[in-house]
Amino acid sequence: MSGFVSFISAGPGDPDLLTLKGAARLREADVVLYDDLASGKILDLARSDASLVAVGKRAGRPSTKQQHVNRLLVDYAATGARVVRLKSGDAGIFGRLEEEIETLRAANISYEIIPGVTSACAAAAQAGIPLTRRHTSRRVQFITGADVTGELPADLNWPALADADATTVVYMGRRTFPVLAAKLIEHGLAPDTPALLAESLGRPDERLVRTTVAELAEQLARGGAATTAAVILFGALAGDYRP
Amino acid sequence: MSGFVSFISAGPGDPDLLTLKGAARLREADVVLYDDLASGKILDLARSDASLVAVGKRAGRPSTKQQHVNRLLVDYAATGARVVRLKSGDAGIFGRLEEEIETLRAANISYEIIPGVTSACAAAAQAGIPLTRRHTSRRVQFITGADVTGELPADLNWPALADADATTVVYMGRRTFPVLAAKLIEHGLAPDTPALLAESLGRPDERLVRTTVAELAEQLARGGAATTAAVILFGALAGDYRP
Repeated sequence: MSGFVSFISAGPGDPDLLTLKGAARLREADVVLYDDLASGKILDLARSDASLVAVGKRAGRPSTKQQHVNRLLVDYAATGARVVRLKSGDAGIFGRLEEEIETLRAANISYEIIPGVTSACAAAAQAGIPLTRRHTSRRVQFITGADVTGELPADLNWPALADADATTVVYMGRRTFPVLAAKLIEHGLAPDTPALLAESLGRPDERLVRTTVAELAEQLARGGAATTAAVILFGALAGDYRP
Repeated sequence: MSGFVSFISAGPGDPDLLTLKGAARLREADVVLYDDLASGKILDLARSDASLVAVGKRAGRPSTKQQHVNRLLVDYAATGARVVRLKSGDAGIFGRLEEEIETLRAANISYEIIPGVTSACAAAAQAGIPLTRRHTSRRVQFITGADVTGELPADLNWPALADADATTVVYMGRRTFPVLAAKLIEHGLAPDTPALLAESLGRPDERLVRTTVAELAEQLARGGAATTAAVILFGALAGDYRP
């Protein structure tokens, strides 16, 4: 009774952006542990007799919640069930995999990670633009705009992020973007650097907005606490989006 | 007769890492333009009467080759065919999409980009590690180790890349890694920073090697001109890989 857990990357929301391998594992699963963020429609792929367990982890919740998820993973795997842990986007990018993996390793439970489409790739694709371009945009970088308390991490590498020759994508960054933008402009990023806000990717209320770093910061500072999932992309390539 | 092109991200090589949407488009395609790098097995999804056109673009070839691909895209789309342009990994990341997109825009041909699994995500997943970790590895960045001439781009942001608090993934970087590593160590990266070499992902000859930045540079400098596809990942998280 060794147990096995498949971490499945659900992709950005559109069930069609799940991989063939992810879909196959989901169809075989006895138990599926999913977050609030994972698309409801993707769960339709699970067997009708599979146990679907919402573990509702969200940014800002206390870490006891994570301990509960860890315990559930071990407990279900120990029964010999085929356990799927569904993560939105690519599980390895801001998916908070590390604690769950460490728990499984400590309990001697095998696991696999099935990679997927991360939101940055989905946002760019939806906008019809690449994330890199020869000669001009040779580096692409992803950061999260919210640490475990929901605030902008204090120790980000500002010069690396203020580099106009990179394409930068901010995950979970809507609320803290005004602070981030101010920091980056202070470190030399041009206020009129093209930016793209991608909201609710792959859902009926999807919205792409082409703007600039300074304009977007101003809008979001005024806009109050919107709760829809969003990624923010900035750099020269964002200017290539044609609505 | 407006024409339409689907850019499909084939993923890192394993056909099961194609998305459901990519697979569906490939099954409907009348014409598929593919590079040498795209997995042969993925092409099995195409209809038996579809035209499969190898366009064999490789790093270092002259740009007339790219002009030929551009012309083919326009010519096939103009016939009203459902054209698929298959790209390995995620098409938007070092997929050289920009010229093909610009050509289609100039010819008034509509297109879509279907995102996919980029090699960085596949390599980390295969190693059983995430690309980010709370508190310690909050930034992930991708660069290419080969510009259009096959050399290391001369104007990379060295301090951004020498940041030990980031996870960095180098695409097409095997040949130039010794030069890159020397530059980064010069800019303060510790020579013993953990590194991971991922070769031939998702293929029978797949190989993952855990090493350090300095060791890998030495090995690759000695090793001569291997031609297998590889990505190199470095940063603290690479040290979490357990072979």
